[in-house]
Amino acid sequence: MANKVKEAWRSGRAVVNGWLAIPNGFSAEMYAQAGWDSVTVDMQHGIQDYLSCIACFQGMQPHGVTPLVRVPWNEPGIIGKVLDGGAYGVICPMVNNAEQARNLVAYCKYPPQGTRSNGPIRAGIYGEGGSYQKTANDEILVIPMIETSEALDQLEAILDVPGIDAIYVGPSDLGLSLGLPPKLDREETNILKIYERLIRECDKRGIAVGLHNGTAAYAKRMIGMGFKLVTISNEVGLMVAAARAAVREARG
Amino acid sequence: MANKVKEAWRSGRAVVNGWLAIPNGFSAEMYAQAGWDSVTVDMQHGIQDYLSCIACFQGMQPHGVTPLVRVPWNEPGIIGKVLDGGAYGVICPMVNNAEQARNLVAYCKYPPQGTRSNGPIRAGIYGEGGSYQKTANDEILVIPMIETSEALDQLEAILDVPGIDAIYVGPSDLGLSLGLPPKLDREETNILKIYERLIRECDKRGIAVGLHNGTAAYAKRMIGMGFKLVTISNEVGLMVAAARAAVREARG
Amino acid sequence: MANKVKEAWRSGRAVVNGWLAIPNGFSAEMYAQAGWDSVTVDMQHGIQDYLSCIACFQGMQPHGVTPLVRVPWNEPGIIGKVLDGGAYGVICPMVNNAEQARNLVAYCKYPPQGTRSNGPIRAGIYGEGGSYQKTANDEILVIPMIETSEALDQLEAILDVPGIDAIYVGPSDLGLSLGLPPKLDREETNILKIYERLIRECDKRGIAVGLHNGTAAYAKRMIGMGFKLVTISNEVGLMVAAARAAVREARG
Amino acid sequence: MANKVKEAWRSGRAVVNGWLAIPNGFSAEMYAQAGWDSVTVDMQHGIQDYLSCIACFQGMQPHGVTPLVRVPWNEPGIIGKVLDGGAYGVICPMVNNAEQARNLVAYCKYPPQGTRSNGPIRAGIYGEGGSYQKTANDEILVIPMIETSEALDQLEAILDVPGIDAIYVGPSDLGLSLGLPPKLDREETNILKIYERLIRECDKRGIAVGLHNGTAAYAKRMIGMGFKLVTISNEVGLMVAAARAAVREARG
Amino acid sequence: MANKVKEAWRSGRAVVNGWLAIPNGFSAEMYAQAGWDSVTVDMQHGIQDYLSCIACFQGMQPHGVTPLVRVPWNEPGIIGKVLDGGAYGVICPMVNNAEQARNLVAYCKYPPQGTRSNGPIRAGIYGEGGSYQKTANDEILVIPMIETSEALDQLEAILDVPGIDAIYVGPSDLGLSLGLPPKLDREETNILKIYERLIRECDKRGIAVGLHNGTAAYAKRMIGMGFKLVTISNEVGLMVAAARAAVREARG
Amino acid sequence: MANKVKEAWRSGRAVVNGWLAIPNGFSAEMYAQAGWDSVTVDMQHGIQDYLSCIACFQGMQPHGVTPLVRVPWNEPGIIGKVLDGGAYGVICPMVNNAEQARNLVAYCKYPPQGTRSNGPIRAGIYGEGGSYQKTANDEILVIPMIETSEALDQLEAILDVPGIDAIYVGPSDLGLSLGLPPKLDREETNILKIYERLIRECDKRGIAVGLHNGTAAYAKRMIGMGFKLVTISNEVGLMVAAARAAVREARG
Repeated sequence: MANKVKEAWRSGRAVVNGWLAIPNGFSAEMYAQAGWDSVTVDMQHGIQDYLSCIACFQGMQPHGVTPLVRVPWNEPGIIGKVLDGGAYGVICPMVNNAEQARNLVAYCKYPPQGTRSNGPIRAGIYGEGGSYQKTANDEILVIPMIETSEALDQLEAILDVPGIDAIYVGPSDLGLSLGLPPKLDREETNILKIYERLIRECDKRGIAVGLHNGTAAYAKRMIGMGFKLVTISNEVGLMVAAARAAVREARG
Repeated sequence: MANKVKEAWRSGRAVVNGWLAIPNGFSAEMYAQAGWDSVTVDMQHGIQDYLSCIACFQGMQPHGVTPLVRVPWNEPGIIGKVLDGGAYGVICPMVNNAEQARNLVAYCKYPPQGTRSNGPIRAGIYGEGGSYQKTANDEILVIPMIETSEALDQLEAILDVPGIDAIYVGPSDLGLSLGLPPKLDREETNILKIYERLIRECDKRGIAVGLHNGTAAYAKRMIGMGFKLVTISNEVGLMVAAARAAVREARG
Repeated sequence: MANKVKEAWRSGRAVVNGWLAIPNGFSAEMYAQAGWDSVTVDMQHGIQDYLSCIACFQGMQPHGVTPLVRVPWNEPGIIGKVLDGGAYGVICPMVNNAEQARNLVAYCKYPPQGTRSNGPIRAGIYGEGGSYQKTANDEILVIPMIETSEALDQLEAILDVPGIDAIYVGPSDLGLSLGLPPKLDREETNILKIYERLIRECDKRGIAVGLHNGTAAYAKRMIGMGFKLVTISNEVGLMVAAARAAVREARG
Repeated sequence: MANKVKEAWRSGRAVVNGWLAIPNGFSAEMYAQAGWDSVTVDMQHGIQDYLSCIACFQGMQPHGVTPLVRVPWNEPGIIGKVLDGGAYGVICPMVNNAEQARNLVAYCKYPPQGTRSNGPIRAGIYGEGGSYQKTANDEILVIPMIETSEALDQLEAILDVPGIDAIYVGPSDLGLSLGLPPKLDREETNILKIYERLIRECDKRGIAVGLHNGTAAYAKRMIGMGFKLVTISNEVGLMVAAARAAVREARG
Repeated sequence: MANKVKEAWRSGRAVVNGWLAIPNGFSAEMYAQAGWDSVTVDMQHGIQDYLSCIACFQGMQPHGVTPLVRVPWNEPGIIGKVLDGGAYGVICPMVNNAEQARNLVAYCKYPPQGTRSNGPIRAGIYGEGGSYQKTANDEILVIPMIETSEALDQLEAILDVPGIDAIYVGPSDLGLSLGLPPKLDREETNILKIYERLIRECDKRGIAVGLHNGTAAYAKRMIGMGFKLVTISNEVGLMVAAARAAVREARG
Repeated sequence: MANKVKEAWRSGRAVVNGWLAIPNGFSAEMYAQAGWDSVTVDMQHGIQDYLSCIACFQGMQPHGVTPLVRVPWNEPGIIGKVLDGGAYGVICPMVNNAEQARNLVAYCKYPPQGTRSNGPIRAGIYGEGGSYQKTANDEILVIPMIETSEALDQLEAILDVPGIDAIYVGPSDLGLSLGLPPKLDREETNILKIYERLIRECDKRGIAVGLHNGTAAYAKRMIGMGFKLVTISNEVGLMVAAARAAVREARG
């Protein structure tokens, strides 16, 4: 059950990540065929819950994208459930200090590295011959979100927690935390400097940096800056934008 | 419960119609805010059933689009159910002769014009003070699809059936029926002549003509040709196309 | 698997029947505890489909009510499915002549009386030791709706079809068919005379007569007139009426 | 996105609140038309989860009632999700001291007042032109439940936490906590004195007091006593009571 | 989109077919990994509807089994929907004469061989580069059920209808039709002679014969007799039998 | 609402427990008829959430099995919800010390023994005449899982917490925690000694010991050793094993 995102990172390549807010397996299935490296079910701000996440995973599975989840909160119950359900990685919101990061790692890994409970009911499919439990601690991505000023203050301590594979930046929350309006694709100099610092500190430690983007053009720039995982809007955002444009054009 | 599509047609305006294949109320809710005049739940080729249709209607309702349904077949059970569920119009596939058209009208209208059974459980919401049943026969759109060579042979007889408000053209099936490959946005001369004939015959009778289109550009041209209801792809098609373009751009 | 409705009728007692429009097993479960003899899932005008019907049946089962279904149409596919799913009886809309009545009977009964296909996947639960198929033809209620002027014209022929256990009267559709407004709890003399005729003709043949009522008071009167199955509104109608009254009272 | 409950309170008017235990959008949609000012989805004791809450919100939306949620627990994951899903207010059980109250406020408000994460995926609908985030901290109601003796001991400290708009009293739990049987519509003198104290202390601080009631008559009395938000039973309770009464009446 | 069942038949091999009555994608996903050649969603007697069929197809897809459906009835609406949803073949109950067989073929095939409407919304996934419609008429299996004495009387006429790939025998209904009790794994001499006749007549025409079996042992014998598709019970039957055996053994 | 598991234990009998991973009421309904004393909905590692748990409970209810839940985590929100939904007992993973055990007891019991909130919306069904709340503290089973080396270190302290009815052993997690591979039906001497110690310490205190088993044969042995609740695999595991065996046998 090699994790293709990890493979991409080992070869120095950035991954392009999809994002699912619509709680439906058919929608996920069609979207997963658009060329993404990985697709994340957003259980925090998307209209998703645990069973819709499973349905989205089932829809994605034949299409070769790595299934990730953004969990609603840093809580062991739901993290265990989505991993058992087949997530290859967990993006966790609002990780603001080393203790929270250590908890996240513990929830994601089997003993002795962590406290995850055994029972990979769907995830076991991925491993031939019961091999899942042997490789999961190495293959599952642990990805705390860095999106507050507190997290920036604690950055090095967070990044030094063993077991973190990547961090993920939420530009809206980061902005709110710094007293700026919530939005994506930011151009404020201080924000861009933060991005540079994040990349620098992560690069030192072999940790990838991910970013949520509003547009493909900005995502491309951010790959150039050193981000290794870029998300572009989400499926419903792309759909509504395309629909608006189509209506406008048809009406002339 | 005035039907806004009928109002548009009375004022000579063409309506731009959305199309739903994803069986989810949230998806429908977001899509319904993109500017469409009407949105059709596609129960024939979409991944939709009766309860998902209701969920889509609920999602759409606050956003002022007229709810339509394409039923899977010309069958009284399901036609009655979607009308009771709140459809302002029924697009019915494969209506190939006058008898089928008469049946369709009968299924859509209360006595004495038809045989629809009373019980507008959600649709009754639209009418203040129990007025729904008084206006439904006038306001509900009856829209047979003309999409086979047999239907073209029987065109005048079909159009002369009292109670037909519009016809809807399925270019893929029409092509298949004529020995051509199934596709939208057709440029074959004989197809375009058929479109002209349809518009001409319908115009004589005060019947609107609708067309399923693949692109907004083609839809705009067809409005110019005289079509009064144009659909542009469907929500999942727009989403996947937008996703493909975003991935490509981000990858450079 | 004795059918308690049949038992009641054999002892001369009228049954009080509930009616479900909300597609939810919990709602059905609570409602089923209110004292009904039987509860009908309304797949014609209710917001119900096949799987919601199964969920409602599961909710009802511990509470001793006889599960019935009103199917959306006189069609063998759905009739077979609801019987396999555990219905003890089928109320079928718009049965207007003897041929339609014979079809309905055939869809509801195993050979040689009918053409029902074997496979009572949930219904088999009711019978201990595989006995279901032996008693189903006797225990399952076949109940055509008499609700059009055509059906009144064909009444004797319909009632003479072997295998009919009861008829069910839809006052709204009957009214519409006779050029009257659609409503329940009717007081028109000609309607009441029709009711008397229905009861008289059915009594001759040992067939019960059911009626959909808007209020309990009217239902009680109709029991007095000879109706043997009375439905009172539906669960959502009772709920909304109670809610309106509560709001009004609280506001003073 | 003005919150109509806040508007009512500013004008001194008490609001009459509905309560949803049935996890179904259609049921919610019909119930929402009964005249309520606000309707609360009960995720604690109702048969509700996150996606059913969204479905209920969609059903309510066209009917002008303010959507509230009682969350299952004072936990940031689910509070964030229901606010993003469109709740105008959060009723939170078992808030027993000032720290718990501060946490609740923090989970409900964007920085700098709190720690809510940005992403109002459905809630954003309410605000035209991206205005939601600017007004949410002011418009979203934060409503801790006061329902234990510990909470009464800590009352002033709880009420002094900035950001609390109202409190909500659960009479059953309050009774249990005081060694009394769990029930609504209580007449014990010491309970009524507690109610008076709650209203007095809240009035001082411009905080509204809400109460869960079993009957409209009691709710009306409580409005007279100074409660500003009264709930009457829930939809399933009203339905079953109405059904019992109807069965009894029909049977004579 | 080569159909693996057809490939097996071309190489003279019998296929072992699974059968799904539980309307759940996870259940289907696990069951599909047990070694079946094909798995059929039973929409006639199983607790399945259209959307649960899609969910089962999604669960099966990564595991290399050919997805088939038994439709509830020989009706063009649902047949079109399941084919668009991705079925590689349709098993249709109660095909009793050549006209019904011709209708079935017509519903399953695009013009000019039939009247299927274009729109393979999920099925299109199978074909690379829009190739689905070019191969579907050849690859989709059309499988009428032969399960009544009428069908036996009309056997040759049914088998001579162009476009039939296989027939499927329902032993319970066949028994009922012949006045025998409904059961599987029959040993009556006259039934076994019927099986031999079916195989003989089908072999002449290059048509495969399938059979529903209760046990693997009987299925194996029937492969030996010449059946080319054998189903063994269904997933819920196997589960309950295994559970009963486990309980008994644990209790000693 | 006598709890049959408690009754069995009082009479010295071991109970055989089923386990549900498939989120479907029909599947649960059929499985519940296989002879189990109790059936547990596994919300931790099963594909289950709160509403699927309710659906499973509804399916089980007529069949006389005691409904239990394994919750995803020791968290008051979900524990309250499943108890209100009708669970007769809560199995809670990863209870590693006395404080966690005390919390678990508190979440499960009404005051004064605990802090459970009143509102047994489905559970109230079990009690005639509002008696549920009077007996729930006595009848509801509180069952912490002992499955880590930390829990073994704290065993006596955990067992001394008042209100614990049983413990449940997860052999896979216990193994992982001790540096052994995760599996059921263990034969390591040190594990078997741990089992003996657990039984000895629990017997002293009148606490039952439960175990998750892979096979009925091992479960039977463990009853002999003194376990009082034995689970055998889960429904999907039994189903897939039976399906594999059937395919193998049919293929010869």
